Order: sequence, then structure tokens, then C-alpha cells
Amino acid sequence: MVKIRPMDDRVVIEVLEAEQTTAGGIVLPDSAQEKPQRGKVTAIGAGKLGKDGDRLPMTLKVGDEVMFGKYSGSDVEVDGHEFKIMRENEILLRFDR
Amino acid sequence: MVKIRPMDDRVVIEVLEAEQTTAGGIVLPDSAQEKPQRGKVTAIGAGKLGKDGDRLPMTLKVGDEVMFGKYSGSDVEVDGHEFKIMRENEILLRFDR
Amino acid sequence: MVKIRPMDDRVVIEVLEAEQTTAGGIVLPDSAQEKPQRGKVTAIGAGKLGKDGDRLPMTLKVGDEVMFGKYSGSDVEVDGHEFKIMRENEILLRFDR
Amino acid sequence: MVKIRPMDDRVVIEVLEAEQTTAGGIVLPDSAQEKPQRGKVTAIGAGKLGKDGDRLPMTLKVGDEVMFGKYSGSDVEVDGHEFKIMRENEILLRFDR
Amino acid sequence: MVKIRPMDDRVVIEVLEAEQTTAGGIVLPDSAQEKPQRGKVTAIGAGKLGKDGDRLPMTLKVGDEVMFGKYSGSDVEVDGHEFKIMRENEILLRFDR
Amino acid sequence: MVKIRPMDDRVVIEVLEAEQTTAGGIVLPDSAQEKPQRGKVTAIGAGKLGKDGDRLPMTLKVGDEVMFGKYSGSDVEVDGHEFKIMRENEILLRFDR
Amino acid sequence: MVKIRPMDDRVVIEVLEAEQTTAGGIVLPDSAQEKPQRGKVTAIGAGKLGKDGDRLPMTLKVGDEVMFGKYSGSDVEVDGHEFKIMRENEILLRFDR
Repeated sequence: MVKIRPMDDRVVIEVLEAEQTTAGGIVLPDSAQEKPQRGKVTAIGAGKLGKDGDRLPMTLKVGDEVMFGKYSGSDVEVDGHEFKIMRENEILLRFDR
Repeated sequence: MVKIRPMDDRVVIEVLEAEQTTAGGIVLPDSAQEKPQRGKVTAIGAGKLGKDGDRLPMTLKVGDEVMFGKYSGSDVEVDGHEFKIMRENEILLRFDR
Repeated sequence: MVKIRPMDDRVVIEVLEAEQTTAGGIVLPDSAQEKPQRGKVTAIGAGKLGKDGDRLPMTLKVGDEVMFGKYSGSDVEVDGHEFKIMRENEILLRFDR
Repeated sequence: MVKIRPMDDRVVIEVLEAEQTTAGGIVLPDSAQEKPQRGKVTAIGAGKLGKDGDRLPMTLKVGDEVMFGKYSGSDVEVDGHEFKIMRENEILLRFDR
Repeated sequence: MVKIRPMDDRVVIEVLEAEQTTAGGIVLPDSAQEKPQRGKVTAIGAGKLGKDGDRLPMTLKVGDEVMFGKYSGSDVEVDGHEFKIMRENEILLRFDR
Repeated sequence: MVKIRPMDDRVVIEVLEAEQTTAGGIVLPDSAQEKPQRGKVTAIGAGKLGKDGDRLPMTLKVGDEVMFGKYSGSDVEVDGHEFKIMRENEILLRFDR
Repeated sequence: MVKIRPMDDRVVIEVLEAEQTTAGGIVLPDSAQEKPQRGKVTAIGAGKLGKDGDRLPMTLKVGDEVMFGKYSGSDVEVDGHEFKIMRENEILLRFDR
């Protein structure tokens, strides 16, 4: 895959299908369409620019499974695959590694 | 239950039914539908990211009973159970431990 | 009464009836319906979270009589009693202790 | 009069009638209805809470005559008298002491 | 004239008529009605309150000629004269002293 | 020309006609009417007031050619000439000196 | 090409056509019209002005390929070529160098 680097504290997320039953046993029924979505982090930024020019550390790692609001972030297409890109602070939760 | 970790200063809350009489003796009648809701904290984040990259401490602990505005936060479903997720500063009050 | 702890710099207030003549001799006529309301502080938070993780001190104490905007805060019911909960900086004034 | 203490940097003001000719010779005609109003400071707060928990000093003193926007602040009634309460930074100017 | 003291970083300005040709040779035609207005500073505040409780210095001095947006500030009447009062940072420019 | 001093970090700009071919060879066609405009800096402020009362340095110098959003800033007339005045951070770019 | 210098943390970007297959193998189909766009950085600013008057470092370099929201930034024309100009923090991601 083309290597991409999200800017600042952004993360790139591969959306996991709502119908899918995950390894963790989570089932999201049809009525969940307006609910937060689940995805997998595929790339992370260097962190938010602090006021002294340093980068604040990221919490997420590549491979983390997360949930985020259905309308959060922007759709991007890289190598014909669809991803979401959003700032880390828009992510609601991650599943334990 | 699947282990989840709310991001930043978010907390995951199991909503307690409004009709229920709680151990603490609180009764929330039907007319309370538009009023703040009661719930139990089931997971907490690592804290808000301070400007120096540290995490500010959380006030709430897992197991705390709290009240929050009816329209605060997002609905998430984990393992077929419905939860609320919101930032700690949207929580109005907690009942004494 | 069930012990409650408002979060951050919030205060819980028992609303005093507008028609009532108070010990301090204050009379709030019917035409005052849209005007700030009077109440008594029944619980206070630990204070607003400062940027270093400390809590800024509260000004109000339990028992203080205060005035606040009619539309400030949220209604909460605890033990069948109605209260208002709002942030301390929404309180307009307190009567001398 | 009942002793009141405005919260933070708020001030309580007794509104002076627009028709009145003041000691300072100021006349505010009928056409001035939408214009800033004149009043007398009757109580002041302890000052705005600084980020270190200290109180920033107030500029106004009890007795100062001031002007403020007609729609600034809230109406409060104490002891049957009508007052305005607003934050000090909403006050436009004061007349020399 | 009655002595007035603008609060914070506010300045009181005597509006100069748009038709007037100034000493500096500036002519503002009728079509300039919606354009910034010219005026003369007649009183200045002590400066904006800094976060340590000190006052930040003012740039303008009494007597300065300035331009400001037509809809900036509030109209005040003192001693039967009309003035504008606004914060210093709403002033667009001053003419050289 | 009358000497003017923009306040804070404002700059005064003489708008260059869109039809004009500049020394730098830039041509802005009719269809560019809604696009950023080009201009020449004719006066600059002392810089934005820092939180310690100092002035942050300006990037632009008198004589710089710049581009700015068509709807940025205010129109001012000085000595019968039309200028734009806006804050430096509304300027999009400058051409190399 | 005329040398330009974006102000603050702005970057000038040459938009790459959506239909184009890039060296990196990215294909953006017609249905991607509302999606983030790809471009090449052609000029960068000196960085955002820090609160001490210093410039915070830029992340992007001239030549970087980036993605940005379709409606981000402003269109500018320099030497008859169309560019986008926007602040660095509006850039979503860059492709690896």
C-alpha cells in the first residue's frame, strides 16, 4: 500500500462493516446505522503541534480497533480503498489491545 | 465483556431505567423524561491531554453512579448492550461512594 | 438525603418560591416570573479543573442563598425533591452570610 | 438594605432615570431610549477568578456612576428595589470620582 | 466637560462629519456613508486587564484622529454631545501625530 | 500623502487592478472577479499586542505586493484614494522582494 | 515562476487532476468529486506566529504530495496557473517522501 502520513493528530481508519460480527463478539444490527461506527487504525499522525513547537504524543497505534461518530471525519480513497480520516480527539473509544 | 477504553476524558455509562427505584431511594417519575438521566460508569478514559502532553486526572471511577443531561453524549453498542459515551465534564453530578 | 457531589464547579440549588417573603425581607412579586430566581445551595463541586490538574477554589458554601437566571442550569430530582444544578459562574449573586 | 455580594466580576447597579438631569449636568432626552443607560454601582464582586485561583482586581467601587448598554445584564429585585447585575467588562465608562 | 473614564481598553470618540474637509486634506464624499468613519479620541481607558491583573498599555492618546467601522461601538451622550465608545482594537487606523 | 498608522497588526493596501499585467507577469482575467485580489502594502501597524504588553513583529513591509481574499478587510478613503485595511493574518501570500 | 511566499502557516498547492493515475498508483474515480483532493505543495509559509513572536516549524516541504478537503482554502492564480492556498492544519495527509 502507498505509505501515507496523516497530518497533526489525525488518524486514518479502515471502516469495518456494521453487519460484521467481530472477533470481540460485537454485533451492530441494522438499526445501528446512525450510531457510532467501528474501524481499524491504519495510519497515525505525528501528534498535535504543542505551543512550543513540539508534538504531543498520540494515544492510538496502528492496528487499534476504535469507534467514532458516523459523521466524523472525511472520506479519502487511497489505492482504491475507502478510508476515514479524522482527528484523534474525535475518536470515542478503542478496544483493548 | 469486551474491554473498551474511552479516549481522553470520556466515560462510558450504562443508563439506568428512569422508572427504577434505586438503592439510594431515588425515584424518577414519567414526567422526568426530559430531565437528566442516571447511569453507572462502566469505563473511563486516561484523562484529557494537558498542554504539556500529560493527562489530567479523572474524577470519576468505574462503578460511580452519575446524572447527565438526557441529550448528552453518543449511544454506542458493545456486546449487544447499549451505553452512553460522553466527556467527563458533561456529567452533572455523582452520588456518594 | 442521598449524598450527591456536583462535578467540577457545579452547585446544586434548592429553588425558593418566588412568592415567599424571605428572612432577609425580599419579596419577589408575580411580575418577577421572568426574573432571576432565588435559591439555597445544597451541594457544591470540588472546583473547576485548573490547567495543572488542580482544582480552583469554590466561592460558594452549602447553605448560601443565591440568585441565578431563571433559565440557568438543569432540573434534577433527587429523593423526590426538585433541584437546579449549574456551574458556579452562572450564579449572579449571593446574600451575605 | 440586605447585603448582597455579586459573584466574580459582577456589579450591581441602581439605574438612574433617563429623564433626570444629573449633578454632572448630563441630560439624556427621550430619543436616548435605545442608548446606553446611566447608573450607580451599589455592590461589586470579589473579581474574576484568575487561572491560578486568585481574584483579579476590580476597577469599579461602590458609589461610582457608570454607563452601560441598555440590554446589558439582568434585572434583579432586592428589597423591592430594581437593580441591574452584569459583569464589569460590560460597563462602558465611569464618571470621574 | 464632565470627566469620563472609559472602562478597560475602550476609547470615547467624537465623530467628525463625513462632509468636512480636514486639516489633513481628507475628503469623504457622500458615497462614503457605509465606509469607516473618522473621529477624534476624547477619552481613553486604563487598558485591557492582563491575566496577571496588570493593565496592558493603550496605543491611542487623547486628541488622536482615527478611523473606525461605521457600525463599531455604541453611541453615548455626555453633556448633550454625541460620542462613540468602542474597544481600542476596533479602531482601524490613526493619523500621524 | 497624509501619514496613517494602522492599529495593531493591520495593514493598509492599495488595490492593484485585476486587468493589469504586473511587473511580475501576473495576469488576472475577468473570471477572477471572485478570486483573491492583489495589492501593495502602503502602511503597516506596530504589530499585535502580545499578552505581556509587547508587540509581536510584523512580517510585511511597506512596498510588499500581496494577495488577499476579495471580501477581506474594510474600504477606507484617504486623500481621495481608495485603500483596503485588514489584519496581517488575513493576507494570503506576498510576492518575493 | 514568480516567487511567492505564503503568509504564516499557509501552503500553496498545485491541484492534481482527479482522473489522473499518480506515480503512487492512486486512482480517484468520477464519484470522488466531493471527496478530498490531491495536490503538490509548491510553496510554504514561515510558520504560524507563536505567542512569543517566534515561528512554529512547518511539517510540509515543497514537493510533498498531499490530500485536502475539496472546499478547503482559496483559489489563487499566479502566472496564469491555478493554485490552492490554505493553512497547513487544513491539510489531511501527505504521501510518504
